[in-house]
Amino acid sequence: MIGVYDSGVGGLTVLRALRRTAPSCDIVYLGDTARVPYGGKDDSTVCRYAEEALSYLSSLSPSLVLVACGTVSTVFLPRAGGRCAFPLLGVAEAGARAAAKAAPEGRIAVLGTEATVRSGFFPARLAELAPAASVTVLPCPLFVALAEGGFVGKDDSIAALVTERLLAPLSASPPDAILLGCTHFPWLSPHIAALFPRARLIDCGEAVAEELAPLLKGERGRGETTYLVTDGRESFLRAVERMTGRLPDGTVREISL
Amino acid sequence: MIGVYDSGVGGLTVLRALRRTAPSCDIVYLGDTARVPYGGKDDSTVCRYAEEALSYLSSLSPSLVLVACGTVSTVFLPRAGGRCAFPLLGVAEAGARAAAKAAPEGRIAVLGTEATVRSGFFPARLAELAPAASVTVLPCPLFVALAEGGFVGKDDSIAALVTERLLAPLSASPPDAILLGCTHFPWLSPHIAALFPRARLIDCGEAVAEELAPLLKGERGRGETTYLVTDGRESFLRAVERMTGRLPDGTVREISL
Repeated sequence: MIGVYDSGVGGLTVLRALRRTAPSCDIVYLGDTARVPYGGKDDSTVCRYAEEALSYLSSLSPSLVLVACGTVSTVFLPRAGGRCAFPLLGVAEAGARAAAKAAPEGRIAVLGTEATVRSGFFPARLAELAPAASVTVLPCPLFVALAEGGFVGKDDSIAALVTERLLAPLSASPPDAILLGCTHFPWLSPHIAALFPRARLIDCGEAVAEELAPLLKGERGRGETTYLVTDGRESFLRAVERMTGRLPDGTVREISL
Repeated sequence: MIGVYDSGVGGLTVLRALRRTAPSCDIVYLGDTARVPYGGKDDSTVCRYAEEALSYLSSLSPSLVLVACGTVSTVFLPRAGGRCAFPLLGVAEAGARAAAKAAPEGRIAVLGTEATVRSGFFPARLAELAPAASVTVLPCPLFVALAEGGFVGKDDSIAALVTERLLAPLSASPPDAILLGCTHFPWLSPHIAALFPRARLIDCGEAVAEELAPLLKGERGRGETTYLVTDGRESFLRAVERMTGRLPDGTVREISL
């Protein structure tokens, strides 16, 4: 069984990519929906929440845990060390590698939550992976609220205006690649692509699913998805339906962390 | 000492009103900043968080606790019963009374979080207080993210567009009074007033501060404010500065709930 951990429902973009790569895996998705969002909170709070969630997943003996949350991947994982009984990896690392490959000598714009921007993870990692690239990092906190509230449709005027305003600092020298450093952000892709049609958009979930494909080939199961949520089932079902247009396909259970 | 409890920083609008009414009171403001926002979460989660926060405040022996959060006031308080060692009241009740007084036979629009709208508190209470008024209730979830992110300036184009879009259902028959049923919403007042210049805007914090004024006259102290926050000090200071343009005047301490 593969564990996927996210602060809330944003990681469903990662789950979707993983499901395509590994249709027969059993996946347990843990969404800390009672405490979402993480991105505006302090590092110590993010780390405490991550430790609690990983300790819970650990009790289910997963063969691997993927951190789908960009904030946890950039704030917690670099200091987590190798203290886990299972392989633990985050979406940020695969995202950074995909961005470096897409524009090794070009302009890379990284969009993230406030905590991710503060962490300095992406500029540091990209300096190693693509030393000739120029990297700009932008905080996009409102994107999470837009995605969670369902204000992300291709014709949504609020999403269009917010995207234009938050990405305005990039327009003077348009990026070659835009790394969507938070798993909520792929919901805004049509608006980001409309502003920067020549930029390659990097979805961390797609990137990590591709990297994991060979490993997951050996993982057999019934293709079942179980959702564990810390807030109620009802609000999870509402949020998923608002974001994806349909209900999740799997069992949903409430847990306490 | 008076306790003020809010999910985050939204209740600072209530604190401000209370401070004007009772300048010499000692006030302890508890903001559950590690778990904000509450408004999109399930009732059972909101109630659990409220019980933990009130249990903490109870240990400080307050002479009264005011729930500054509209969501807790409408979801938790009606079922809390009289299980407290101190008087406990919420902003929603005073807000409803002020709205009933402002438009006893008119059109009252109530803006709230999703949880507040689901609670049915305001329509039920207004049916008792102003049976001749017609009441419309609208969920405005994005307002909280705008306020927390500082996108609330008078000339902010995002705030203007979001307000216009969320309040569009009211334009066919403009309200006489608009009850701001969440303590974040007064930050959006200029935009709401621009759309409905004839409507009386009801700020729950102002309403409750006015109602409490006679009681608080007897409360003496040094006029000190202590802020207790569940997320880090730093993110609280950043959020307050973003919302009010300056740092909070008082001691800020981190606590665990």
